[in-house]
This record gives sequence, structure tokens and C-alpha cells, in this order.
Amino acid sequence: MLEQLKKEVYEANMLLPRYNLVTFTWGNVSGIDRESGLFVIKPSGVDYDKLRPEDMVVVDLDGNRVEGEMNPSSDTATHVELYKAFSNIGGIVHTHSPWATSWAQAGRGIPCYGTTHADYMYGEIPCVRNLTREEIEEAYEKNTGVLIAEYFKDKDYVAMPAVLCKNHGPFTWGKNAHEAVHNAVVLENVAMMACRCEMVNPQVQPAPQELQDKHYLRKHGPNAYYGQK
Amino acid sequence: MLEQLKKEVYEANMLLPRYNLVTFTWGNVSGIDRESGLFVIKPSGVDYDKLRPEDMVVVDLDGNRVEGEMNPSSDTATHVELYKAFSNIGGIVHTHSPWATSWAQAGRGIPCYGTTHADYMYGEIPCVRNLTREEIEEAYEKNTGVLIAEYFKDKDYVAMPAVLCKNHGPFTWGKNAHEAVHNAVVLENVAMMACRCEMVNPQVQPAPQELQDKHYLRKHGPNAYYGQK
Amino acid sequence: MLEQLKKEVYEANMLLPRYNLVTFTWGNVSGIDRESGLFVIKPSGVDYDKLRPEDMVVVDLDGNRVEGEMNPSSDTATHVELYKAFSNIGGIVHTHSPWATSWAQAGRGIPCYGTTHADYMYGEIPCVRNLTREEIEEAYEKNTGVLIAEYFKDKDYVAMPAVLCKNHGPFTWGKNAHEAVHNAVVLENVAMMACRCEMVNPQVQPAPQELQDKHYLRKHGPNAYYGQK
Amino acid sequence: MLEQLKKEVYEANMLLPRYNLVTFTWGNVSGIDRESGLFVIKPSGVDYDKLRPEDMVVVDLDGNRVEGEMNPSSDTATHVELYKAFSNIGGIVHTHSPWATSWAQAGRGIPCYGTTHADYMYGEIPCVRNLTREEIEEAYEKNTGVLIAEYFKDKDYVAMPAVLCKNHGPFTWGKNAHEAVHNAVVLENVAMMACRCEMVNPQVQPAPQELQDKHYLRKHGPNAYYGQK
Repeated sequence: MLEQLKKEVYEANMLLPRYNLVTFTWGNVSGIDRESGLFVIKPSGVDYDKLRPEDMVVVDLDGNRVEGEMNPSSDTATHVELYKAFSNIGGIVHTHSPWATSWAQAGRGIPCYGTTHADYMYGEIPCVRNLTREEIEEAYEKNTGVLIAEYFKDKDYVAMPAVLCKNHGPFTWGKNAHEAVHNAVVLENVAMMACRCEMVNPQVQPAPQELQDKHYLRKHGPNAYYGQK
Repeated sequence: MLEQLKKEVYEANMLLPRYNLVTFTWGNVSGIDRESGLFVIKPSGVDYDKLRPEDMVVVDLDGNRVEGEMNPSSDTATHVELYKAFSNIGGIVHTHSPWATSWAQAGRGIPCYGTTHADYMYGEIPCVRNLTREEIEEAYEKNTGVLIAEYFKDKDYVAMPAVLCKNHGPFTWGKNAHEAVHNAVVLENVAMMACRCEMVNPQVQPAPQELQDKHYLRKHGPNAYYGQK
Repeated sequence: MLEQLKKEVYEANMLLPRYNLVTFTWGNVSGIDRESGLFVIKPSGVDYDKLRPEDMVVVDLDGNRVEGEMNPSSDTATHVELYKAFSNIGGIVHTHSPWATSWAQAGRGIPCYGTTHADYMYGEIPCVRNLTREEIEEAYEKNTGVLIAEYFKDKDYVAMPAVLCKNHGPFTWGKNAHEAVHNAVVLENVAMMACRCEMVNPQVQPAPQELQDKHYLRKHGPNAYYGQK
Repeated sequence: MLEQLKKEVYEANMLLPRYNLVTFTWGNVSGIDRESGLFVIKPSGVDYDKLRPEDMVVVDLDGNRVEGEMNPSSDTATHVELYKAFSNIGGIVHTHSPWATSWAQAGRGIPCYGTTHADYMYGEIPCVRNLTREEIEEAYEKNTGVLIAEYFKDKDYVAMPAVLCKNHGPFTWGKNAHEAVHNAVVLENVAMMACRCEMVNPQVQPAPQELQDKHYLRKHGPNAYYGQK
């Protein structure tokens, strides 16, 4: 069942330790098959060096396990909400990557200070508020997804494939699991350089809008000219 | 004698360099066999790349060497006090891991700024005071353990398996040597992100109590649902 | 065509990941054959672990591709302008290396705080202004090169083989592609230490001029005595 | 000639890249044979991955090359002065290791904030002043050594085996080349943690004197009890 997707999601998960985005089991990647409405996600709490493609868990968009012997990631309900709200995405990543998590803990969005950021993410990377006590008690993981979806309701989630959850950590997404991991790496780099940039110049301002536009559109949209075709 | 425990403690010691928690010989791990009241600890000042399972030293709870040709860790007397005071622990780690040690040198406990911290440690990680000149002269290593035990007298040392000793460094513990190392890795990550978090937002406040509760209890206690089973 | 140069430029490109100067495809190296007026450059957006010597693209000083099946780096027009303006250089590097990029994002030149800097670069490493909206819209990459060339019009580009572009990142150069990479590594180290130096002493002043002179001239010019002849 | 010493000094040099203390050729180690009054030092500007034991250069205490085909390190004259002034040392290291160099560039000595520091170095690690223009012009490398020797004239260079040269970088020493490298690693760690410690608590004070005494004397002197015998 979804063997190719399981392989892709497994490989995307294995990129997290390779890019130093996870310690222990602090992260998970999923990828969806839009036709069947099923997605594949890492099992909960399994070490990356013991993870195998066949351990991946298949889940439906109600959050029910459809195949697999292990429990899916404890963040599965968040993934469900994001897949339901963002119809054009095919993969989701959650990590506690250290620099992005430091910004999340600080409760600040990451201003766009340069072209590394603008090449992939359009504008400030948002930090969404804490859930209320009621939201936590009712359904913590689900409401995390609901809150993110609510924030992006009138925004372009393709042009901003990342969010920070206050006092928690980042989620990123993309057209598939691999691109979602790519965006998680970009986010970690951007978070690191934004912090150091503020150390070097505490009064720094975001990059000029025309520079952000140029770089984002150089890589995205009909007139993109970066890369090979 | 205690061959299985020696092997476990040896392996736990070897995780310290693997997780970049030690330079040279600046760390030690022990594990206890509660039935016999004996514990196994790294020999003092031996390089990690020369360490062998059979070098482990067996010590009783009076701090006497029971087996082994080498001197036990110079911090053995601290381990003794912690094993005597914390009856539910099976392993102890001491390191000079850089981020945790930086907080210890700064004389500050580490506030709980996010869920990475709350997943493992409940509340602020404490920093205990310096020993007095008298306490140092009388019995430095023993009194370090006495001070930690005194601090935790009316607190839950299972929910807070870590402490910073002012101007010195951290101790962590767990149900066995391996879990104590796991907690040492968590502590180092949490210390790093707390520092960077304060750089990004000098006015940052601890995470809301309900979020700390949610994450701690998601992983610990009768209603935990993280992981497999 | 230019097979030896292609090999050299390929090898210089492969040094970027080895020295941790690039993530993904965020960097490019070129080298020029002054006799033919042709230069060799990395293809655009190709992963470093898939890059082969035969993928290198040959370009003329009008920016036209002369050989190769792939698109040259999207920054090719910047390289063209630098080769035209700096007649004594043989290689150019662009990266988003994290520390240098943090200074570029902060919009600050890097003061010469010590001999590591002075050994290779004479004086403050400049940070050139943002392009205007008109310059961006007219020809972004070309005008980036024009701006750098304009800045160095009355300055010694051999004694200062590096520049930061505001809100973007660094360019470095040298007598060949390999030396340009060497200077990119120096720049990254210098940028890192300058930031940390300001953390340790926010009132720090540049190194005395006579010390800068001594170190620069110990390694460069007719009376240099560092190294083997 | 001095084959055993050459091998030791070669091996000590090769520890510099292994402990991430050098980039390119930015460092050198020497070791002395007190009987003959000759010392062995790295050749100038030779890459570490091409260095061989037979490349080591033998120099006398007037700074004359006695054996070897290559030029000795450009810092040889500094080593000469230190060997002449510090009769009990057997090895010297110079690096541009990043954290120690950041403190040197900042012009600050490193306060003793904790036991990692106190275990090896007794008190604040000093930062000596810049040479004057006259001292630089007369004999830069020699006068660097003269200045350090002058500073330690009435101090214990065994208890403080490290110094920072303002706007330049560190020198460390020890009873042989290997111990000098060990102290260079300690210095880099201590410099890193002191900077982070000040970030966490800008008002931090040095560790209490009695704690410094305890740790230094636990490892050094007649009553030391750390390690094996």
C-alpha cells in the first residue's frame, strides 16, 4: 500500500538527522497521496537509526491509522489539519531544529533580512500564538493545526511554507515530503543568520521590498530563471 | 562481578563523546545495582578512546572501591550522595558540556522556554549555590552531593532529572545510566536554545504553565501517549 | 575546450561544501582564461553532490554561453562585470556563507580586529549599498557587478579581495578560482570572529594600523617572508 | 637528528586540525630538547594534510636553522624567546583558534568563571598589550616573545600556561609539545564558555577563590588526587 510514497517519506525523514535538524526523535515528516486521501507518517518515538521504510504508518484524513503496526507520530492530528486546509501541499515536516525553535521560544516571527530568506519564503516567517488552556485541553495537536490553518486563511501558504508555533517549534511544508524538508533546512539557516544579523546590528531593518520581490520571483512563478529550465 | 552493568555503564560513558558532551576526560557516568548496593563508575582521568568495559570500577555506597584496579572518578563521592538521596534513580552523569556549563558558570537556572524542555524536565532547571569554603575544605565532592540532595529534599527529582552546580557544571540522572545520558543531551540542547532564545528576545517569559503540563504529561505518567505503547 | 580550467573550477566549486560555505546550491565559483577571454562557471541550481567537471559552462565576457548544455549560474552577469573591471583576477566566488551573510544582512562592513584578517585583507571589508529599484529592474545581476566595480574604482581590489552586498551575501576573488575560494574561507572565519569579538567587548576598536601593515606585508609584496619562498 | 622529538612535534601539530584549532596553516607547534638546546618546529605555511614528520625544522636558541630544508614557522622568534624565558617548558603552541582569538581581538583577559578553567589554569588568562610601532618595526616576532616573557617575569608560567596577544591570538605551552596542545584545547573551550556565560549573565563574577584553589590543586601539586596516581 502506497509503497512508493512510504519510501519517499522514509527517505525524507532520514534527511532530518543528515541536515542536523533533529536530536533523538524530535521531528517527523509526512507525505500525502491526494488521490486516495491517505498520508504516510513516521511512527511515534522511533529512533532514526532504527527506522525502516516498512515502519511508516498510513493514516487517513480523519487521523485513523489505516495500515502499520506502530502508533503514528503524536503530531499526526496537526498534519491532518494542515493537509485539509492547504490543498496544494504534499508534504509536512515538524522539528525542534535549534535556531528555528529558539525564535519560536522567543515568540517572534523572523523578519526577512536578506536574499537567502527571500529566495524561498516571501516576507516575515510568522510565529503563531500559544493555544489557550481550553484549546490545549480539548485537542492539543489538532488545535495546533487549526490555529495554523486559521492564520493562513487569507494568506499564501505556498509563498510562505513555514510557521513557528510559540514556545514550541516550526512546521514547514512543500509540494512533497522532500520539498518540505528542504524548506525546513532553509528555515533553520535563515533563523540562524537572522539572529546573528541582529547581534551585528541591533537596529537592522528588513531587506528592501524590491529586493525581496526580485529574489522570490527569480526562483518562483512564470518568469523564474534560476536553475535548469 | 556485575558484568552486565559494567557493559551498560561503559556504553553509556561512550555516548558522551558521541553526543559531543565531553572534551578529554571531562565527564563520567555511573550506574547502580540496587540489590547489592554497588555501583559501577568510570575510572578517573582515563581517555574515552582508550576506555574498556573492564576498566569500570565497582564502588559501594560508602565510596569504597570493591573491584577494579583503577581509581574511580574523582566525583565518586558526589555520586554516592545522589544514590543515597534519590532512591528511584539507577544512573548518574556529570559533564562539562559547554552550554549547560555556561549557564552554571553564569549562576542561573534555565527557565522553561518551550516544549523541548517541558517534554523531559518539569519547570526551571535549578542552579544550586556555591559550596562554602568550609564545605569545600571538609569534603568537596561529598558536599556537592549533599547540597544537591538538600535542594531536592521537598522536590520531585524524577520530574527534574538535572541540576547545575554554580561555577562548575551539570549533573543529570535517570532510571539507568543510559537514561541519565539521554537527559544530559536534552539538558545541553535546552541550555543552548534558552541562551539563543534570550538573544532573540531579551524580555522572553517562560512557556505558559498549561503548555508545560501538556508536554510533560504527554510523555510521562499514566496518561502518556507519546511513543510505542 | 578549456579542459584544464574546467577541472580547476570544478575542484574549486567542490571546496565550498568541504569548507561548509554552502547549503544546497547557494554558491558558485568561476575561473577565467584571460587569453581567450572566456570563463568557466558552475551551472545554475545543480546540487554539489551531483556536479561533474563536464557540467561546467563556458561563457564569454558578454555573458553568452559558448559551451555546455546547462544554464550557467544565475549570477553569471555579476562575474562578467567583475572580470571586466578587475583585470588582475582569475577567479571569483559567491556564497551565502552564514557569518559573512549575517554581516551583509546587517549592512555593515567588517572592521579589521586582528591579524587573521590583516594577513589576507587590508583594512575594513566593505559592504556595498542596496541596488535601487531601477537598478534591480533593469539588470539585477549585472548591476550588482557594476556597483562593486564602481566601489573599487579608486581602491586596491588585490589587497581587498572581498565585498559584502547588503541584504545579500559575499563575493570574493583571487588570482585563480582556488585562491578565490581560499579568500571566501578567510572571510567566513574573519566574519565569525569579528562578531564574537564585539560580543566580548562592544567597545572594541580596529587593530592598530602598524599591526595591520606588518601582517599584510609579512604575507604580501616584495618583502613577504611567510611560507616557503 | 632528534628523530623522536620530530615525530612527537609532528604528531602534536596534527592534533591542531583534529581539535578544530586551525584553518589552513594558521598555527604551529614546537618542542625542545633541553639537553642540546635545540627545538623542532613546523615549517612555515605548509598545509596540515601535506605535512610529514621529516618536514619538521630543527632550530637553535638563536633562531638559526640547524637542520631541515624548509623555512621554520614565521613565529619561530617568538618560540625562541619563550623557551629562553620559561626554563621549565618543553613545548609551545600558537594558533588562531576562533574563540581564544575573539577574546584576543577584544583585548580582554578571560576571567575564571568556573572549574573547567580552574582545573588547568590558575586565575585570569592574561591578554598582553599591542607592541608599539617601534617594537613591531624592530623585530615583530621576537618582541612578541619578549613582551610575553616580561609579563610573566614575576608570575607563575606553569600555573598559567596560556596568554592572549592583543589583536592577534593565543600562545600556550606545557611540559612537552603534546601538553601544550592540550592546553590550547582547554583555552579554546574556556574562551567559548566564558563568552556564552557573559551572554547568559552580563553581571557574572569570577568563581570564588576557594573553588578555583580546590580545582587547581585537585589536579596539580603534591596533593593532587585526580587521575591514576
